[in-house]
Amino acid sequence: MSSDQAAPASRVASKKGRAGELRSRLFETRKLSRTLAEPLSDEDQVVQAMDDASPTKWHLGHTTWFFESFLLGELNKSYRLFDKDFAYCFNSYYESKGERHPRPFRGLLTRPGADAIRAYRAHVDDALEKFLDDGGIDDAALDIIELGINHEQQHQELLLTDILSLFASQPLRPAYRKVKIAEADKACQATFIAFDGGIVQAGHVGNGFSYDNEGPRHDVLLRPFRLADRCVTKGEWLEFMADGGYETPSLWLSDGWTTVKEEGWRAPLYWENHEGEWRQMTLGGMRPIDPAAPVAHVSYFEADAFARWAGKRLPTEFEWECASEGLSEEGCTLGSDAYRPSPAGKPDGSLLQMFGDVWEWTQSHYSPYPGYEPPQGAVGEYNGKFMCGQFVLKGASCVTPDGHSRRTYRNFFYPHQRWQFMGLRLAEDQ
Amino acid sequence: MSSDQAAPASRVASKKGRAGELRSRLFETRKLSRTLAEPLSDEDQVVQAMDDASPTKWHLGHTTWFFESFLLGELNKSYRLFDKDFAYCFNSYYESKGERHPRPFRGLLTRPGADAIRAYRAHVDDALEKFLDDGGIDDAALDIIELGINHEQQHQELLLTDILSLFASQPLRPAYRKVKIAEADKACQATFIAFDGGIVQAGHVGNGFSYDNEGPRHDVLLRPFRLADRCVTKGEWLEFMADGGYETPSLWLSDGWTTVKEEGWRAPLYWENHEGEWRQMTLGGMRPIDPAAPVAHVSYFEADAFARWAGKRLPTEFEWECASEGLSEEGCTLGSDAYRPSPAGKPDGSLLQMFGDVWEWTQSHYSPYPGYEPPQGAVGEYNGKFMCGQFVLKGASCVTPDGHSRRTYRNFFYPHQRWQFMGLRLAEDQ
Amino acid sequence: MSSDQAAPASRVASKKGRAGELRSRLFETRKLSRTLAEPLSDEDQVVQAMDDASPTKWHLGHTTWFFESFLLGELNKSYRLFDKDFAYCFNSYYESKGERHPRPFRGLLTRPGADAIRAYRAHVDDALEKFLDDGGIDDAALDIIELGINHEQQHQELLLTDILSLFASQPLRPAYRKVKIAEADKACQATFIAFDGGIVQAGHVGNGFSYDNEGPRHDVLLRPFRLADRCVTKGEWLEFMADGGYETPSLWLSDGWTTVKEEGWRAPLYWENHEGEWRQMTLGGMRPIDPAAPVAHVSYFEADAFARWAGKRLPTEFEWECASEGLSEEGCTLGSDAYRPSPAGKPDGSLLQMFGDVWEWTQSHYSPYPGYEPPQGAVGEYNGKFMCGQFVLKGASCVTPDGHSRRTYRNFFYPHQRWQFMGLRLAEDQ
Amino acid sequence: MSSDQAAPASRVASKKGRAGELRSRLFETRKLSRTLAEPLSDEDQVVQAMDDASPTKWHLGHTTWFFESFLLGELNKSYRLFDKDFAYCFNSYYESKGERHPRPFRGLLTRPGADAIRAYRAHVDDALEKFLDDGGIDDAALDIIELGINHEQQHQELLLTDILSLFASQPLRPAYRKVKIAEADKACQATFIAFDGGIVQAGHVGNGFSYDNEGPRHDVLLRPFRLADRCVTKGEWLEFMADGGYETPSLWLSDGWTTVKEEGWRAPLYWENHEGEWRQMTLGGMRPIDPAAPVAHVSYFEADAFARWAGKRLPTEFEWECASEGLSEEGCTLGSDAYRPSPAGKPDGSLLQMFGDVWEWTQSHYSPYPGYEPPQGAVGEYNGKFMCGQFVLKGASCVTPDGHSRRTYRNFFYPHQRWQFMGLRLAEDQ
Repeated sequence: MSSDQAAPASRVASKKGRAGELRSRLFETRKLSRTLAEPLSDEDQVVQAMDDASPTKWHLGHTTWFFESFLLGELNKSYRLFDKDFAYCFNSYYESKGERHPRPFRGLLTRPGADAIRAYRAHVDDALEKFLDDGGIDDAALDIIELGINHEQQHQELLLTDILSLFASQPLRPAYRKVKIAEADKACQATFIAFDGGIVQAGHVGNGFSYDNEGPRHDVLLRPFRLADRCVTKGEWLEFMADGGYETPSLWLSDGWTTVKEEGWRAPLYWENHEGEWRQMTLGGMRPIDPAAPVAHVSYFEADAFARWAGKRLPTEFEWECASEGLSEEGCTLGSDAYRPSPAGKPDGSLLQMFGDVWEWTQSHYSPYPGYEPPQGAVGEYNGKFMCGQFVLKGASCVTPDGHSRRTYRNFFYPHQRWQFMGLRLAEDQ
Repeated sequence: MSSDQAAPASRVASKKGRAGELRSRLFETRKLSRTLAEPLSDEDQVVQAMDDASPTKWHLGHTTWFFESFLLGELNKSYRLFDKDFAYCFNSYYESKGERHPRPFRGLLTRPGADAIRAYRAHVDDALEKFLDDGGIDDAALDIIELGINHEQQHQELLLTDILSLFASQPLRPAYRKVKIAEADKACQATFIAFDGGIVQAGHVGNGFSYDNEGPRHDVLLRPFRLADRCVTKGEWLEFMADGGYETPSLWLSDGWTTVKEEGWRAPLYWENHEGEWRQMTLGGMRPIDPAAPVAHVSYFEADAFARWAGKRLPTEFEWECASEGLSEEGCTLGSDAYRPSPAGKPDGSLLQMFGDVWEWTQSHYSPYPGYEPPQGAVGEYNGKFMCGQFVLKGASCVTPDGHSRRTYRNFFYPHQRWQFMGLRLAEDQ
Repeated sequence: MSSDQAAPASRVASKKGRAGELRSRLFETRKLSRTLAEPLSDEDQVVQAMDDASPTKWHLGHTTWFFESFLLGELNKSYRLFDKDFAYCFNSYYESKGERHPRPFRGLLTRPGADAIRAYRAHVDDALEKFLDDGGIDDAALDIIELGINHEQQHQELLLTDILSLFASQPLRPAYRKVKIAEADKACQATFIAFDGGIVQAGHVGNGFSYDNEGPRHDVLLRPFRLADRCVTKGEWLEFMADGGYETPSLWLSDGWTTVKEEGWRAPLYWENHEGEWRQMTLGGMRPIDPAAPVAHVSYFEADAFARWAGKRLPTEFEWECASEGLSEEGCTLGSDAYRPSPAGKPDGSLLQMFGDVWEWTQSHYSPYPGYEPPQGAVGEYNGKFMCGQFVLKGASCVTPDGHSRRTYRNFFYPHQRWQFMGLRLAEDQ
Repeated sequence: MSSDQAAPASRVASKKGRAGELRSRLFETRKLSRTLAEPLSDEDQVVQAMDDASPTKWHLGHTTWFFESFLLGELNKSYRLFDKDFAYCFNSYYESKGERHPRPFRGLLTRPGADAIRAYRAHVDDALEKFLDDGGIDDAALDIIELGINHEQQHQELLLTDILSLFASQPLRPAYRKVKIAEADKACQATFIAFDGGIVQAGHVGNGFSYDNEGPRHDVLLRPFRLADRCVTKGEWLEFMADGGYETPSLWLSDGWTTVKEEGWRAPLYWENHEGEWRQMTLGGMRPIDPAAPVAHVSYFEADAFARWAGKRLPTEFEWECASEGLSEEGCTLGSDAYRPSPAGKPDGSLLQMFGDVWEWTQSHYSPYPGYEPPQGAVGEYNGKFMCGQFVLKGASCVTPDGHSRRTYRNFFYPHQRWQFMGLRLAEDQ
């Protein structure tokens, strides 16, 4: 997702229980953001390496502004704004929330300083605590809190991918933290698992949280298909490169081929060739290529070209969702402390790596589900207005906060973007 | 469609009958291209007003090169190339056909001159005639001929829309030819016609010609919907403008709003405000706005914003195709000599203006149908490689050659493009 | 000069004599423009290959508009405008003459057509004839006529260099006309001729025509210097290239080096490498490199780098003017029918090639002479407003109309420009 | 000057005396850089607001690298590099010193951090101290030290102007420090002082330090002229604006007018209109316009247009230098603690504000003096390679370190640049 979007949904049986659970998740989430910023100097937190990325400090301020603006400022009469100028600095794209600092210039914001933003976070956290202690919180407020938690989780993932883009742009290629690289040097052959077609249901259902773009739940007609039991690996990607993948126009979408030529792509993002050997910039600094691990940082254009080269195709978002039915929604996400995609375990006849390691490109353009209506008000600006020219990714990545994603989650990016942990899993018709 | 794409398909019962029929359609089509160029000076035919457009001369050469390259050059051993340099000049985007002149520089080609291109056409037409007279033409050759006819028809439409873009860019705003503007000053209120949902079949079937992207025919699940009986009119568009349509960000997709601001859009393309009054550049020169006629030259972004403003939505390509079941595929196309969209006739409970006047934007991203495989060889470069970031348009326009379109036809353009005769028809859920 | 600039000056003893002489020069000049356009098709005349260039047709219209606007429209009450829209089309850059068609879009003007412009020329020529026949023409009018003649001559040179840029951009690389390439395969070694310094006079003096930027005549202090007796040749340029001239940053001005890298320069403009052999696009089509002829189509950046490589420097404009004292102002200009720079004749102790073949870059920034004031009115927009960031060139080129240039002539271009016939002559301190 | 350039020159009578004097100036200069950075957070020091500017941290590192690379690394065998990667980070534009980090990406360098750069400075300062204590320092080394001092002073000025550009780009418009604004609300009328022409000497002479571009000293021929006794004020600039200065094309150079339109200029840089009232961003934050103080942050284009509007002209660099003969070279520079241009004192018949407040644009293109040769080696890349398309400024500004400038000093910038403290003084012919 370009940067943040979400909408309330869930209802839990007991309001008291829900309030208590959200309270603890809220402050855990708020704390995690601070923890993620800890390895960074104040200087690291201020700079923006490319237009799509934002500075760490901005993520920290923006997620705080979200609670201030959508919750405290609207529902808590006694709340005092920390600083009236912050709304201009930390609004992302909410047209209905007024003028805002242009995205490409976020990296200029040396003031407010990191200290001021830490104080802002503390101020808002205190106010949130008091607001929750006051009781009398209604479901609408709880919905905003739940939305705010999910919103902040999205920015935690962006914080890490944006730092990677910054560190990769620096001559010294610094490491964000220590990262362990797996020892397996080659993955097992992928197996394709068959799924029946027919009319299936897609989209979110039930009491748990989801974004507005995951609904309405609706019937979808699928043809029988098969899905690889693991993601495409870096080793396989090296074969694609060795076979002239980046020099063969017939493998590419027309816009993809144009991009390859204009950008001079000849490997995934963050791969560098040092005297004939490919290495990769990671959150742990420059490292050798790990052939058994899922390839990441490839665009839709590259994923699509690879699938064509392999004689397969990308799955649709509905195939992916259908195939994931009944699987645990856990995997190698942020809590696993891996900070890079990990090789799949031994094949066991089930789909591996579905909810972690890399977001998986699907061939589905990001469009509204039938009957979709964005919510009223500013939160309605989350998802609907981006439904044009982007593609859906499913699953989760190695830097997605634990518990953030789910089967019906629809991540989305433009086909040329590749700074997220984006990879692919192959599919084919039966 | 960005400029040309097609793939063979049809088979007719009797090969002889098919050959005869194609022969006459071939030479009628070839002649129509010459006729369309007649009102233009040689100078008019050489210039290109924008990167998306091509010079008339280039269209005339390229459609001829198509027959030379895909038919005569491959199947007719005795054929002598008219000029070996022409392939470089007149290849559009076939990577497999070798290097080619870059699209944005097509307007530099003063040589070969218009005379040489007329001679080239005559040379190839003669060769085609001899080739057809020789007999022994197999189905593969007939398929190429049929494809070539359809391909040339697409370029006939582009020739006219590209000339409009050229003439609109010139200080003198010349007219291509006389165009009659209708007298009706206001359209009847649109009525919404209901259609049942369920599983329907979409995609081409039968012996007639179709492009590869119209298949495979497959089942589609639809929910009940309603479709307006006519296109949105210029009068309605003026209301949208008067209501601040171009100044209200909440009506727009995010990319659309960015485009509105960057391009300074405040009306459809070719509309100009002369001292408070809107006028429009047409193939008949500058003319008053005709409020009863369908609005044209609006982008997907604008069509989508208008639908949101109107409290409706755009139809999907499958809704449109389903609703058109059983309708005649004729309408106000090129043969009607209108050269501009015409007001709908009296409402009669059926869908009007479906196959003429303006291409109609749908909300469907242009994606492959399940099981789609592009054909082998160069003709496989027609459609598949453009399936990214574009939207499907249905119907036909006032400058589409008669008989060119059909229910299953999938035209496609990027959401910002608007130099074609593009309009919209509203839909809603039941 | 960027495209046209000039200002009246001269006075001849007898007004009658002057009027008669100007009359015949006027109609000869007007006729020469027609003659130069003759080898071109109407299509050739409409297109513009780059922003700096203008279409032939535009040159023909603009030079005509000049007489209409500055002479007939202002001094001839009975004159009827040929077409009131033409001023918008054919004004170049006279802010005081109203809005005008933007320069980069001149190539869109298919209307008015070449025929209309020929009629426009005839109309204005008739009116000029009548105006001159009427008698009673005062000196101010004669000044405008003389300016108009010189102005049209400048455009004749541009017409040819712009056509070369167009033809060089076309895949077929057509020839404008037959051009003879000299047989001498190597030039004699250049000799440096010494000149004393001291206070000399620079700037125009006397009754002949000159532009405003050639005055006021003023004292200049020179140090003793030496000037090469001929221009740098293509053979010498090949040595520079072979010695890594285009790959050695220390030879280049900082802006020059940036340009070399951005533009990928590795030879003069219009040089193309065909399988290891350099060839050159000329007005006679693609031709072998002629090593004895002066190099042309090099930028100031390249000329300056070459001089540094050679251990020499470029002359100042004042050194050049001083050294040319007493020389005939004739040379290989347009009337010689060469259409390309010619090898110097045998060395004879004097400066060769001073007034023909190629314009010669000097190291002098184009600045006003002390006391310079632009003339009042629109003609004051000719020269003064361009005195920023350009460099002075002296002499004349193979496509400069005969008699157009003189010792004090100051041509000027930006340091990156090279589509004119620009070359260089080396200098050194004594 | 674009950022740094210099070359050795001076010789003092006693080497011991010279060494001692340079030693104390060296460490004072090194200390001043630290002092200037003190009001800034580490975050402030890392960001770059525009391509022309550099981060504070980069200035601190680069000036240190200069001593390391040109002095310690070359002349001190026992010197150990602080970090071998720093050369890549902190080389500015010395092609002969190897690859370097691209200028527009200097703002990405969060690592090395500000702490590391402070340690780098301490390391190099220690090494410099030891190197100087060792004795046996020859004149060549002293020349480099003197050059390094002057080089660092230039960067001190840039550090401040670059911080102003950063702070002006931030929504909060922070202040660098407290700045006193003068009380005088209107300046006295300017008086023009007459100077004789004749042959004068220009360029540096004597034992003191100068850059290579200030020589060789040579004769120049001047005509009698007059020079205003003070700089143009902000009050006068408001009159120019009120009289339509920014809307009148005839006042502007052609390139200037293009820039005005493209950039939307309608006031000096850093001026902002708040509800009809002009205010100005300064090193002291947003402040009212001070009408008696010299206008600053105007480009050459603006200075030239203003002079034309005022019926005057800009002086040449030689007029300015000649007129300054015999004046004290002191003025309102950095040591005055003003941090903004100050109103001129009472007129006293002499030229005021000549060596402080604002650098003064001259009409002289920045060209080499006759006989100029850049020094051998990397230091030869300081000045010569920038002699193209820039203009000379004379004097000094309110943020020029004391003692840095002198009569023969030639500062230079492109005509569109205005982020320095650039102003103007009018001249006229006698």
